[in-house]
Amino acid sequence: MIRLRYLVNLSYEIVDRTADFLFLVEAARTARQSVVEEELRLTPAIPVTQYTYPDSCNRMLRVQSKRGRLAVRYEAVVEIDHRLDEWKSLHEVPVADLPFDVLPHLAPSRYCESDRMMEFALREFGGMQRGYARVYAIREWARQHMRYLSHSTNERTSAIDTLVERTGVCRDFAHLMIAVCRALSIPARISSSLDYGADPAMGPTDFHAIVEVYLSGGWYLLDPSGVSIPTGLLRIGTGRDAADIPFAAIFGNVRSERPYIEVEALTDPAAGIEMPLATLKAISTW
Amino acid sequence: MIRLRYLVNLSYEIVDRTADFLFLVEAARTARQSVVEEELRLTPAIPVTQYTYPDSCNRMLRVQSKRGRLAVRYEAVVEIDHRLDEWKSLHEVPVADLPFDVLPHLAPSRYCESDRMMEFALREFGGMQRGYARVYAIREWARQHMRYLSHSTNERTSAIDTLVERTGVCRDFAHLMIAVCRALSIPARISSSLDYGADPAMGPTDFHAIVEVYLSGGWYLLDPSGVSIPTGLLRIGTGRDAADIPFAAIFGNVRSERPYIEVEALTDPAAGIEMPLATLKAISTW
Amino acid sequence: MIRLRYLVNLSYEIVDRTADFLFLVEAARTARQSVVEEELRLTPAIPVTQYTYPDSCNRMLRVQSKRGRLAVRYEAVVEIDHRLDEWKSLHEVPVADLPFDVLPHLAPSRYCESDRMMEFALREFGGMQRGYARVYAIREWARQHMRYLSHSTNERTSAIDTLVERTGVCRDFAHLMIAVCRALSIPARISSSLDYGADPAMGPTDFHAIVEVYLSGGWYLLDPSGVSIPTGLLRIGTGRDAADIPFAAIFGNVRSERPYIEVEALTDPAAGIEMPLATLKAISTW
Amino acid sequence: MIRLRYLVNLSYEIVDRTADFLFLVEAARTARQSVVEEELRLTPAIPVTQYTYPDSCNRMLRVQSKRGRLAVRYEAVVEIDHRLDEWKSLHEVPVADLPFDVLPHLAPSRYCESDRMMEFALREFGGMQRGYARVYAIREWARQHMRYLSHSTNERTSAIDTLVERTGVCRDFAHLMIAVCRALSIPARISSSLDYGADPAMGPTDFHAIVEVYLSGGWYLLDPSGVSIPTGLLRIGTGRDAADIPFAAIFGNVRSERPYIEVEALTDPAAGIEMPLATLKAISTW
Repeated sequence: MIRLRYLVNLSYEIVDRTADFLFLVEAARTARQSVVEEELRLTPAIPVTQYTYPDSCNRMLRVQSKRGRLAVRYEAVVEIDHRLDEWKSLHEVPVADLPFDVLPHLAPSRYCESDRMMEFALREFGGMQRGYARVYAIREWARQHMRYLSHSTNERTSAIDTLVERTGVCRDFAHLMIAVCRALSIPARISSSLDYGADPAMGPTDFHAIVEVYLSGGWYLLDPSGVSIPTGLLRIGTGRDAADIPFAAIFGNVRSERPYIEVEALTDPAAGIEMPLATLKAISTW
Repeated sequence: MIRLRYLVNLSYEIVDRTADFLFLVEAARTARQSVVEEELRLTPAIPVTQYTYPDSCNRMLRVQSKRGRLAVRYEAVVEIDHRLDEWKSLHEVPVADLPFDVLPHLAPSRYCESDRMMEFALREFGGMQRGYARVYAIREWARQHMRYLSHSTNERTSAIDTLVERTGVCRDFAHLMIAVCRALSIPARISSSLDYGADPAMGPTDFHAIVEVYLSGGWYLLDPSGVSIPTGLLRIGTGRDAADIPFAAIFGNVRSERPYIEVEALTDPAAGIEMPLATLKAISTW
Repeated sequence: MIRLRYLVNLSYEIVDRTADFLFLVEAARTARQSVVEEELRLTPAIPVTQYTYPDSCNRMLRVQSKRGRLAVRYEAVVEIDHRLDEWKSLHEVPVADLPFDVLPHLAPSRYCESDRMMEFALREFGGMQRGYARVYAIREWARQHMRYLSHSTNERTSAIDTLVERTGVCRDFAHLMIAVCRALSIPARISSSLDYGADPAMGPTDFHAIVEVYLSGGWYLLDPSGVSIPTGLLRIGTGRDAADIPFAAIFGNVRSERPYIEVEALTDPAAGIEMPLATLKAISTW
Repeated sequence: MIRLRYLVNLSYEIVDRTADFLFLVEAARTARQSVVEEELRLTPAIPVTQYTYPDSCNRMLRVQSKRGRLAVRYEAVVEIDHRLDEWKSLHEVPVADLPFDVLPHLAPSRYCESDRMMEFALREFGGMQRGYARVYAIREWARQHMRYLSHSTNERTSAIDTLVERTGVCRDFAHLMIAVCRALSIPARISSSLDYGADPAMGPTDFHAIVEVYLSGGWYLLDPSGVSIPTGLLRIGTGRDAADIPFAAIFGNVRSERPYIEVEALTDPAAGIEMPLATLKAISTW
């Protein structure tokens, strides 16, 4: 069992008369993740509408703010009970057996143009042993053929750009891995998290994009950019790709400051609350 | 009230030992559309799994076929009770008031890269009177700035390609219109239908892609390519863009023939079943 | 007659054992532009190879530098004798009459994908009166449909991106205008210059990309981004697009500082040396 | 010594009042290739302007045709005296030593976006032994990672598309190889030829796009798609990429038929005229 405390501070200056915000910063409540405590505070203290999407468990906040400053502070303590499975037991599920609600995760999406990568995916990974090993090989391919380079890409960069330019940040690694998986008929989606365990030399704590793939009847988490300790990855939101889960979608003329984020592991060995540690096992999120 | 009979004949030759198919050809059952009768026949008569997605009402068929030939024949009689609204009464819904399940239709998707068209959309349409009139102006813009040209595009063509190349078929018109609407914070989605009323000189009856936009609390149908009579447009599937609603998603090595399609209006004036006619009103699908 | 003094200071730190540089910063010597005086100084004082391309008059410098710092300082006084023509007299030259050495400027190039803009160009500008008026209309179109926004694009941005995203800097305006001209069979090329007359509020003096089009047997200069006074535009290099005329092409691991540039008009009314002034006439560079 | 006879038949129907054509079908006259005899015949017998570009040796034909039919028939006997060099002796020329007229072949071009492939090229080929062996490894990479698939691409397809989609025809293989070479600072260009020696099962004799790279002071020919016998490759035109050397550039509304092409080797052992044979040596074109 892992327990994480995290804090997200967002700051905006609204230039128009009003602006609308959709925030996705709250920890998801899932079968393997529970929110022990949390506090949301807006300054000024304007009304917030909250909605949890039934399929994704994404907890969206909607706010309309008037001209001036808006600060959003969210703090939570979250418990994660990742199930660690032997990766050798995990198989790819044939299309004929996939649940219907999983099938949409085979389709291409804004940043994951899997339809254009069929030949590439088949040539590189088509002959491999199917299952978790193949998925992990895709993750390793990305790490060996790409350079992690801060600020090398932007919010328009897609998996195709990344396959060509071979540089990017966590979301670019995630999009490329997702696109390759889907091209091989392996359902894949993105999740937003925090980069627990990242090297502080790479910059301050930040949001983090990771991948979930569907194997053996459930979703398994991988971190293709390899910057974090996967067992320390909580779930904020999940979707087809980054277009579905921005931490803030903003409608109106707004100046944004860089988010300030903290994350730490809380331990309590007596209660079985341990530090997130590296593992060779597959990390189930269901 | 409109009553349509349609027939879809699909023919495949499976080259691999098996192949999987996901078909989306059955008429949706919605508040405004009912299926009076229908028949699905596969040759050979292999098992079919059917599933209706609760949000979209899409009725998916899943089939696993062995090597050899597969024919799918679907015939249905469908009644549509489009509500015709005065377009002047239809307003755009502010983001703050959009239902949460409509919000995902503001995000960019595989073929509708609205995130890259913000400046374009604002410059061309930002100053217009908001509401149905603006949506209709987008539709007219597409028709005036694009050329309908069969076979000029392919299944990889997206709204960005279309904005540059200014040629395309129905799905390209639809993707461009959807992307522009989303760039203006107007929820928009694609629907698959049949091109009832199309000029036979343009080719045989075919599937048809159209647009639905969310205004005044509901979805309204527009045909940006203008090839059909909109009141004769039944709904098969709906989704973010063409990636969500292929009439056939095929997994395996398969040779496909061109679909054969028929559609006709059945009338019964005594029962109030009329011919689909052109209308200046807005066509509600909810 | 215009006389300009300009200074370019470039600074590099070579990280590898050696690095190669190709500089294109010297003023071209053309029928309408002469170099009154110039001085090139490298620190350290390493050898430079100089070459003038016969077709373009581009004066390239080649340098191989060892690890450490390299500074390049170029200063020149240039006289420009632009011929100002009545634009009404300038006609488009039919392909059948174009000089063979002008024909390559009809082909698409790295940043000017004119081949994908045929339909767009024909629809927007196909029906216009041909000649300078049409070329000027293209320039005005760019200014009315695009936003000049510093740092909105990068060195990979092409005319297609710009047609979609409608933002950019001088080189993006130039690439889009060139692509449209070529799509209409009007030869067009890029020239590098300095932004004489630019609003200091937009930033320090900088290199500037402008367009030359071939009309009535010669090349005419236009500034599609409109940031400078065109009569004050000297010629450094010319080519198909920005790929041909970087002020510095660098081979090796090098850290670059932002160039420092000065440009000023020197006047001597007694000698007929005037200030660059706005003009309604067409500016010939041949 | 190789002697080839070839025939090109082109047929058009001009729909507009007139149309302009630029043809590049005549055999180049170079240091290693001479035209023994040739005949050009237009039907109707309208005037042709001929021009040979001094740098490329490309021999362009310009024709203006009135409404109606136009047939172009060109037949030639060409002698090629390829010099075959030991590939081990061929080295890459440092940028500092490249002739100035070769330097432009390092720049990206319309279909060879080498600027976006730097990281990819360095990762795949950066650590290899430099020289012909590295160039040949790039050629082999293309053949091992791509599928030759007729009609899979079109005239808008560029090296980036090919790197993503991994399918294409000869010009796509050529563009990708050129882009990778340039990304590694190896000058590379395209040449147009005929597919001598191609498997007739792949279709009728056709134009063929191949690559020339600059090594050890000269240009060497490679056929990345591997469909022909390289010693039987005559030179028609050469340029940065396919944008420079279309066999026919057409200005006006014209219907084109598929070109009809013949090529055969003429042998005369007594005179040292041999059949084109496979070789392990490097084929020099200078």
